Amino acid sequence: MTRSKSLAVATVQGTFRSVHGDAVAVEEPLEIRLGYATPQGRTARSVSITMRTPGDDIDLALGFLFGENIIDSPDDVMSAEYCGPPAPDTGNRNIVRVELAAHAAVDLSKLERHFYTTSSCGVCGKSSLEALSLNGGVSLSADTAVFDSSMLSRLPEALSAHQVVFDRTGGLHAAALFDADGNILLVCEDVGRHNAVDKVVGGLLRKKKLPASGFGILVSGRASFELMQKAMRAGIPLLAAVGAPSSLAVSVAEEFAMTLVGFLREGRFNIYAGEQRVV
Amino acid sequence: MTRSKSLAVATVQGTFRSVHGDAVAVEEPLEIRLGYATPQGRTARSVSITMRTPGDDIDLALGFLFGENIIDSPDDVMSAEYCGPPAPDTGNRNIVRVELAAHAAVDLSKLERHFYTTSSCGVCGKSSLEALSLNGGVSLSADTAVFDSSMLSRLPEALSAHQVVFDRTGGLHAAALFDADGNILLVCEDVGRHNAVDKVVGGLLRKKKLPASGFGILVSGRASFELMQKAMRAGIPLLAAVGAPSSLAVSVAEEFAMTLVGFLREGRFNIYAGEQRVV
Repeated sequence: MTRSKSLAVATVQGTFRSVHGDAVAVEEPLEIRLGYATPQGRTARSVSITMRTPGDDIDLALGFLFGENIIDSPDDVMSAEYCGPPAPDTGNRNIVRVELAAHAAVDLSKLERHFYTTSSCGVCGKSSLEALSLNGGVSLSADTAVFDSSMLSRLPEALSAHQVVFDRTGGLHAAALFDADGNILLVCEDVGRHNAVDKVVGGLLRKKKLPASGFGILVSGRASFELMQKAMRAGIPLLAAVGAPSSLAVSVAEEFAMTLVGFLREGRFNIYAGEQRVV
Repeated sequence: MTRSKSLAVATVQGTFRSVHGDAVAVEEPLEIRLGYATPQGRTARSVSITMRTPGDDIDLALGFLFGENIIDSPDDVMSAEYCGPPAPDTGNRNIVRVELAAHAAVDLSKLERHFYTTSSCGVCGKSSLEALSLNGGVSLSADTAVFDSSMLSRLPEALSAHQVVFDRTGGLHAAALFDADGNILLVCEDVGRHNAVDKVVGGLLRKKKLPASGFGILVSGRASFELMQKAMRAGIPLLAAVGAPSSLAVSVAEEFAMTLVGFLREGRFNIYAGEQRVV
């Protein structure tokens, strides 16, 4: 699995230019193919091509399909494995085929993402929240885990100890699952921040640990609508971002009774929603 | 146009918690509708819903359609304007309708983005580059603008003077067009980094300034395959990123004779490809 690539780079500072070896994070397409039963027998089709950093690809595929409401539990999956030959340039495997169980109904229209326009109020933030509810989104319970504020403050430092490829390249987003004691249980890195979260959620699905109501998730960048949606879908009650949240990320947190922490860095953070879970 | 939103936030530092007013960047869906001629008369369909920060929406729609090879020049566009009522919650207009000129042939299969699988070598970085060539990508000429290294070093500082909403929220990506003298001519901000670049490119298209061979583009985050693709399509010979490039961003730059600068901060930068344009 090639996740970083060495190359020659010219560094310029003032009038001084030097050439030296450096490393960049690998970005390569991953195709997700879905196999499923039809009245005419089993068939398969490509459902996504995403640019990602190789590694945890099976989990990425599972997390993507779970986030898109194509699968709901590990029981919906018969098998998930690489298919096709390795890429000639890097040797990475870039196609994952997920075979759905015979009972799993498949509604590929869910992948179209045009659900907003069917909402009563047109296209707006409120319609986006309604769409989440229509797609099975539910408010998180009040009796999920609570998190100690000093533990949260120490998380970024704990995360950087785990970010192997980032250290070498500076080019990756990370998503980390942590428990109420501040233990980091799983860290996934990717050039795409959505992919990093999909990898974490897919790993939890595979290990039959969803909903993950006892955990929080830390993301290295900003908090968007889509990241909050993925955390909500996985039943994770707290998302903490090193960067800023968007307005719609805050709205998702409020609507689904989640806790949203932002600007978690240098020993301080802001709570944008669900303050009661931070003690 | 509401681009930032005020709300109450709890800031936690050590055992101290205070509540105060803060602002977050607005994230809201934008629907792009395409009107076009068919043998049966004119029709329209929704081609994209993207989460974006309101502002420069017409340019975002034009830049998106140009980047997806749906339009090639301003002559392909008869009109581009908001349609539908303002969103009830924010008052923003969230639907843009672009009417293609009668002569503009429309191939919506280009939006499917499944072109990788038709490539001879399967799914890999090389096939992604081939797909760009098959979709009309061409190497940039050697006689485009050249850029002074000390000018490049000063760009991030010049950019931050232009980032109005970012200053208030810390939550936006920026893309800035600059000329060889270091003048920043256009800055677009968005929660999505691809949107920020689409807004710049769409603005150039609308003003009939493509290909933009005399300019560079600065992005506030990292450089990915997709951002390089958008710059290449617009004929912009140099992309400079404040953050790291990915392996495939470097490959696009090499394949299409572009210049790629990364880690542009604190008075220094790295050149990953096309060093001859930096003097």
